[in-house]
Amino acid sequence: MSVKPNAHGRHVIVRTIQRPPQDVVDRLAPIGTATVHEAIGRRGFVDPAISPIQHDVRVAGAAVTVLSHPGDNLMIHAAVEVCQPGDILVVATTAPSIHGMFGDLLASSVMARGVHGLVIDAGVRDTQDLRHMGFPVWCRHVSCEGTVKSTPGSVNVPVVLGGVTVDPGDVVCADDDGVVVVGRAEARWALERAEERLAKEVEARRRLEAGELGLDFYGLRQKLVELGVEYVDSVDEL
Amino acid sequence: MSVKPNAHGRHVIVRTIQRPPQDVVDRLAPIGTATVHEAIGRRGFVDPAISPIQHDVRVAGAAVTVLSHPGDNLMIHAAVEVCQPGDILVVATTAPSIHGMFGDLLASSVMARGVHGLVIDAGVRDTQDLRHMGFPVWCRHVSCEGTVKSTPGSVNVPVVLGGVTVDPGDVVCADDDGVVVVGRAEARWALERAEERLAKEVEARRRLEAGELGLDFYGLRQKLVELGVEYVDSVDEL
Amino acid sequence: MSVKPNAHGRHVIVRTIQRPPQDVVDRLAPIGTATVHEAIGRRGFVDPAISPIQHDVRVAGAAVTVLSHPGDNLMIHAAVEVCQPGDILVVATTAPSIHGMFGDLLASSVMARGVHGLVIDAGVRDTQDLRHMGFPVWCRHVSCEGTVKSTPGSVNVPVVLGGVTVDPGDVVCADDDGVVVVGRAEARWALERAEERLAKEVEARRRLEAGELGLDFYGLRQKLVELGVEYVDSVDEL
Amino acid sequence: MSVKPNAHGRHVIVRTIQRPPQDVVDRLAPIGTATVHEAIGRRGFVDPAISPIQHDVRVAGAAVTVLSHPGDNLMIHAAVEVCQPGDILVVATTAPSIHGMFGDLLASSVMARGVHGLVIDAGVRDTQDLRHMGFPVWCRHVSCEGTVKSTPGSVNVPVVLGGVTVDPGDVVCADDDGVVVVGRAEARWALERAEERLAKEVEARRRLEAGELGLDFYGLRQKLVELGVEYVDSVDEL
Amino acid sequence: MSVKPNAHGRHVIVRTIQRPPQDVVDRLAPIGTATVHEAIGRRGFVDPAISPIQHDVRVAGAAVTVLSHPGDNLMIHAAVEVCQPGDILVVATTAPSIHGMFGDLLASSVMARGVHGLVIDAGVRDTQDLRHMGFPVWCRHVSCEGTVKSTPGSVNVPVVLGGVTVDPGDVVCADDDGVVVVGRAEARWALERAEERLAKEVEARRRLEAGELGLDFYGLRQKLVELGVEYVDSVDEL
Amino acid sequence: MSVKPNAHGRHVIVRTIQRPPQDVVDRLAPIGTATVHEAIGRRGFVDPAISPIQHDVRVAGAAVTVLSHPGDNLMIHAAVEVCQPGDILVVATTAPSIHGMFGDLLASSVMARGVHGLVIDAGVRDTQDLRHMGFPVWCRHVSCEGTVKSTPGSVNVPVVLGGVTVDPGDVVCADDDGVVVVGRAEARWALERAEERLAKEVEARRRLEAGELGLDFYGLRQKLVELGVEYVDSVDEL
Repeated sequence: MSVKPNAHGRHVIVRTIQRPPQDVVDRLAPIGTATVHEAIGRRGFVDPAISPIQHDVRVAGAAVTVLSHPGDNLMIHAAVEVCQPGDILVVATTAPSIHGMFGDLLASSVMARGVHGLVIDAGVRDTQDLRHMGFPVWCRHVSCEGTVKSTPGSVNVPVVLGGVTVDPGDVVCADDDGVVVVGRAEARWALERAEERLAKEVEARRRLEAGELGLDFYGLRQKLVELGVEYVDSVDEL
Repeated sequence: MSVKPNAHGRHVIVRTIQRPPQDVVDRLAPIGTATVHEAIGRRGFVDPAISPIQHDVRVAGAAVTVLSHPGDNLMIHAAVEVCQPGDILVVATTAPSIHGMFGDLLASSVMARGVHGLVIDAGVRDTQDLRHMGFPVWCRHVSCEGTVKSTPGSVNVPVVLGGVTVDPGDVVCADDDGVVVVGRAEARWALERAEERLAKEVEARRRLEAGELGLDFYGLRQKLVELGVEYVDSVDEL
Repeated sequence: MSVKPNAHGRHVIVRTIQRPPQDVVDRLAPIGTATVHEAIGRRGFVDPAISPIQHDVRVAGAAVTVLSHPGDNLMIHAAVEVCQPGDILVVATTAPSIHGMFGDLLASSVMARGVHGLVIDAGVRDTQDLRHMGFPVWCRHVSCEGTVKSTPGSVNVPVVLGGVTVDPGDVVCADDDGVVVVGRAEARWALERAEERLAKEVEARRRLEAGELGLDFYGLRQKLVELGVEYVDSVDEL
Repeated sequence: MSVKPNAHGRHVIVRTIQRPPQDVVDRLAPIGTATVHEAIGRRGFVDPAISPIQHDVRVAGAAVTVLSHPGDNLMIHAAVEVCQPGDILVVATTAPSIHGMFGDLLASSVMARGVHGLVIDAGVRDTQDLRHMGFPVWCRHVSCEGTVKSTPGSVNVPVVLGGVTVDPGDVVCADDDGVVVVGRAEARWALERAEERLAKEVEARRRLEAGELGLDFYGLRQKLVELGVEYVDSVDEL
Repeated sequence: MSVKPNAHGRHVIVRTIQRPPQDVVDRLAPIGTATVHEAIGRRGFVDPAISPIQHDVRVAGAAVTVLSHPGDNLMIHAAVEVCQPGDILVVATTAPSIHGMFGDLLASSVMARGVHGLVIDAGVRDTQDLRHMGFPVWCRHVSCEGTVKSTPGSVNVPVVLGGVTVDPGDVVCADDDGVVVVGRAEARWALERAEERLAKEVEARRRLEAGELGLDFYGLRQKLVELGVEYVDSVDEL
Repeated sequence: MSVKPNAHGRHVIVRTIQRPPQDVVDRLAPIGTATVHEAIGRRGFVDPAISPIQHDVRVAGAAVTVLSHPGDNLMIHAAVEVCQPGDILVVATTAPSIHGMFGDLLASSVMARGVHGLVIDAGVRDTQDLRHMGFPVWCRHVSCEGTVKSTPGSVNVPVVLGGVTVDPGDVVCADDDGVVVVGRAEARWALERAEERLAKEVEARRRLEAGELGLDFYGLRQKLVELGVEYVDSVDEL
């Protein structure tokens, strides 16, 4: 989807963006989107219809954003030039598109630049090849339908991706559960909270695996009482 | 949908926002969303699944934005207090919601503040009453399902509405075709271009009604040739 | 959708059902689905994709239920015979169906029996005629596609209608907002609560129209504080 | 959607097509799509998601077909020139499109040619104006989003419209229930059968209104027995 | 979705339910949902949008049911306590929810109780972990979006799951094709019929693999004649 | 979906069809749908909602077409008899169907005839078995819901499959990206163009992998200038 009207409709390619600290990104990658999303206050999750074409991959990287005409991948080619190793390419379109806007050739191109993955609110194709090449993709559609290269768009402007505004340089985290976006300025804060949460989850898992109930572990029994939930021994009591 | 993570997850109500000039808003209202959208460079249109519950109404106004938990209308009540005459209430939720989050009572309340309409990425109810009260609404769902008032959110922060970022004070234009958002800073520029376009459309309509072809009026015959489109007299020639 | 397996798969037509008191039904009809739904504890609302083909109609009646094969209206014909004046015909199918399973002829037939409306989790046709005949319909689809009369089903067995179990004789309330189902055994209790609520809404509307804020009327200011929502004067303070 | 690959991908505008007899078309128009669809053996109905933007209009006409790029209305302009009074413009796109590809200016243009309506598997805009102009439209979307005029397509080639192949010159019937397509070569046969059916429906309605049951009128009681449907007096017998 | 209004809106946790015989459940598990569904008269299949997150798993178990507020997993925690080894946890919500209401921690907890799987009409998260832990899940959504623990619901009451009513203690069968529900009271009857059918399918497969046609094996040639289907040697004969 | 009305509604089974040259089909199979679709002018792609139940399979074959009643697989059995080794079975229905119309028994039957795969605009079941048997399937739904064998249809007539008209004997290509249909008469032309394109893609991939930019390789820099796209060094320049 398109970003809010600004700049009187100019189409621009922003060459240089601010990126989050690399150590922060590297430590966010393996944590998992659910934990990151929780850590920052249950925010930043992208419409889960944008889902992975592969399993068992977790990535994080700085967003290089593309705002593209539906069915036109010209601006994706333009974006490749401004990508740096470790970036995640984020593609939004100005209207819904099921076209396969990205395939094995573009994957070859961005992999040569060190890009770590693609998140696209449209379709991709050559998915068999993409999986074999080990290039991770999160997309709304898989479709062999081809595209043209004839309509202007922008690179590295704010875009809306599955209901979330992504600014260039934001951290994009993605795994089997989908995609979460963390603002660049709060990336380190997010990491700290996510790692704290991760540590707590290890302890929680240990106790729950040992048979302790969530009702006790989280102290929920009193809450049930306060909410007026009644226990009965069998359905005959109703 | 939720806005990008910011402010470390604080929930805020911003009391005062900058609004666009009233004369600009008043002149944008009757123009129609299609013309405004064209005038500003084919931008700003909201997902058309957010559609009107009535016919033959055109409004424009400054956006007072609400970011709400799904199924919870607490923050809509909080927003009423900061509305001014002529505003449009814009409600987004942090996850998809089909709840009827707004009904005749809230309409009574905002009409008392002079609010000109509601655009909500969720459901409304009491639609028969809303139509009879003359309060215009654009929504994604109609549903009698009720809501609670128990979860925090924000008022007058940027929100994403049907794929478009809306900042408080942006101009929201809405009619039978749906909703278009114009940035506050470019509202006057948008108006000028829209009125120019409107004038041209009057002339175009006159000539097309008189039987002149769009092919001639817009000079498209040469374009067809360049694109390789062939004329044949009948299907037998293929 | 189909009800849970029971009775070893027999197809039955139950001739006689228990109906709710007529005075209760008559007083529930004009109240509106949103109010009834609220009154009984926010329950009973049917998937709002089952929506009216007309405006400004409110009905309530005892449910005569039909469980039908998709694209087959044999059992609707069978159901007509067991309908009584004031009933609402409720049709569910064993799998999703977009067929126009009900049209002007069936409407003529059920109107002759005094039926007050149709709620169907499938399609209807002849909608222009239905509106002109004044027979109210809530449906999932409008489609001219025809049906056959060749597969068995049941009449007056429990069905699932848009996610809600409907037992024969339950009260079906329907209006512009959609459909709400009230259990027969709790119909009078529901009416009492709905009428109480209605009375309160009159007072609420009067005060809200007079400009009193919902924040004050519902006592929500303290709740906002408890939830940690902060007031700021302008966005510059963030 | 696109038609099957043919003609090695050429883009053509076919100037002259064979049309059905005018008297046949004129008599089909008021019959209603449901009856026509039944009369020809329950065929020809278009995906009901392509629905009218107005009520109480019934039209029929010869199809002038357009195959268009999504978000591009160049070929609609090209089609206007080959339209004749009484035609119905049929627009399909090569991929799903929510764009508002047709509005008040194109309506002015085709009304000047005597076109009787539009069926489009995409979006339209200026719907308030279209309704006021009295130009009937069946479409999949309403959206103010604008289009370009830059990609080639074809006029008067076979297209697929909502799952139905439409050849130029086929009869398109449309009303409140949606759209049905009748092959040109079988149009008179279709009319004869539809008028026969219509006559029978008058008699059926008279008897059903008088209280005769469909079970008796259609002779369905024996069918219920054969299918093993059992009658029981009350649910207690189950 | 919610069950029909009952019990005047009380929220209850039923501690003890009747379960089907363990030997019946154990023998139903490997049979496959398609065969079970056929055996009981083509009933009990859950909306296939509730689909597995893994391949090659077949389970059956007694249903422990949860009726939950969307985006709130409090009642799932409450349900863990009443689960027994071999149960299947069934979660429905009172309105559509895409939240990830169940993840690796809850899976640890229910695995410690011996639960054999989860069927949920909402979202799950930590899907990579769930697959690695070997805990099978059928769900409508995958989403990292988090939940709260603050709204009451019920445990072991009848719920509607993807269009099918599930009573506590019913047998839930699930595999790669989806989910089928068998009433507890008819579980043994269902098993007997399913095993009979399975035996027949072995023979059918043997003969079809040997090249015998279904037309002959099922005796369908006469049916085609009766239905008026004509054989022609080539399309030229039409 | 159904084909356009023709033949006055007769149901036919066409025994003999013209097939494309076997060498052409054999060489198209491994090429991939995206490349074939591009080679023939970006045509012929089927709605990508019809997707594979397996990974890493590429097939091509002559289409044997079936037009079936929803939820009825009688005509699929009839089609088996006219299949030849290497064919692809293509099944369309006269209305949307989520039924599991094809399972392991039918797969056994068509594998015995040498059929190379199934493309169906409806549901399949026994998907675990189908994958283990190595029979490739592209379908719209997976569902255990069963079917009957009681309604007539046709075999080897033109059908509409996911928006594309398929004539019997057309070449159906399918892989992880979906399905593309190539007209029989243009199959060799399509192959030649696809193989040319494939050769070019090898060279393109080599240069892009070496770091050459698509902007340079495809000569797009001038296009960006012509379209008015501006380069800026950082967002501060906007």
